[in-house]
Amino acid sequence: MTVAQESISIRTGGRGAHDVTTEIERVVGASGVRLGTCHVFVSHTSASLIVCENADPQVRYDLEAYLARLVPDGDRLFGHTAEGRDDMPAHVRSVLTHTGVVLPVSAGRLRLGTWQGIYLYEHRIAAHTRQVVITVQGE
Amino acid sequence: MTVAQESISIRTGGRGAHDVTTEIERVVGASGVRLGTCHVFVSHTSASLIVCENADPQVRYDLEAYLARLVPDGDRLFGHTAEGRDDMPAHVRSVLTHTGVVLPVSAGRLRLGTWQGIYLYEHRIAAHTRQVVITVQGE
Amino acid sequence: MTVAQESISIRTGGRGAHDVTTEIERVVGASGVRLGTCHVFVSHTSASLIVCENADPQVRYDLEAYLARLVPDGDRLFGHTAEGRDDMPAHVRSVLTHTGVVLPVSAGRLRLGTWQGIYLYEHRIAAHTRQVVITVQGE
Repeated sequence: MTVAQESISIRTGGRGAHDVTTEIERVVGASGVRLGTCHVFVSHTSASLIVCENADPQVRYDLEAYLARLVPDGDRLFGHTAEGRDDMPAHVRSVLTHTGVVLPVSAGRLRLGTWQGIYLYEHRIAAHTRQVVITVQGE
Repeated sequence: MTVAQESISIRTGGRGAHDVTTEIERVVGASGVRLGTCHVFVSHTSASLIVCENADPQVRYDLEAYLARLVPDGDRLFGHTAEGRDDMPAHVRSVLTHTGVVLPVSAGRLRLGTWQGIYLYEHRIAAHTRQVVITVQGE
Repeated sequence: MTVAQESISIRTGGRGAHDVTTEIERVVGASGVRLGTCHVFVSHTSASLIVCENADPQVRYDLEAYLARLVPDGDRLFGHTAEGRDDMPAHVRSVLTHTGVVLPVSAGRLRLGTWQGIYLYEHRIAAHTRQVVITVQGE
């Protein structure tokens, strides 16, 4: 049994879904784990990780349009506005879409479906550097 | 320490929550793991896995009514409509309810609460065959 | 490789986010695991676990205000009302915010970001005693 953990920095281009599948695949390959799981965790509360359709970019645009409507920037409901109109909406989006994701590993690779990609979702409008902690466990 | 992984095909009856607790229990039993975790992952982006109340079927009907209102089919917000009015809503529902779930294993069985069941949620209107990858890890 | 599992009872003070970071840290410390993951699972379908900003309490108040608006108590959409106006909304909130969370473990401690806390979210209005099962795996 092996446990391997790596922390990587990812610069997001501002609000939206940023494909990190290749980076995660690299960490899984370097771990030497052939069969097990890969846990991906973002160390922030205004970004999150999702699994999403990876073929048509329109899916991520539509997802962002949906989230922007579901959790409106500048909503007067929110009292926590220290960092601006997108501050509290980013925390809410993070809770609804989640801080981490676990993926199966098989034959030394992520065992994803054909149309699945892993995305770091930046919920703040501005670009940020985000820490992502990847833990691969198995044999 | 043991890692066991199995992929199973599940035919959903169309949109809604499909109980897979028994199938997952079987894989956990076959793994030989007595103490650890069970990761369940669906290899699609228009279906998901949830833990939900298992006693009153009305809970799953109400949940579906809620999701149908929260993410309306045919919403003009969406540009990705290649597969129909329920295409993009299925992707959004999948992101909000999640692609995978991790469950504790104890005494060789899933350690669920009394009223908890595991459900494969089909978000497309039509029935589909879905691949589910189950990874059991522990000792 | 080590697997350690512990079940703890937590009394919530009624609806809202209840900080359990210290309790989880204690279980991780007692497990002897230095590198790996910690899975936290709540054995109920009307409570959940989230990772949230831990500096400004207003964030959790705003999150609760948001969820109360997103999933209104007493919504006439719901047929499952056996335990009151907050019964079905609690199940929906649990599905949207999730039954479990996985966290990285490093140097024998939770590897959280500076502003991340772990919260048991009580979705019922009344205080409840909730069972939380923590499984730590790694080396």
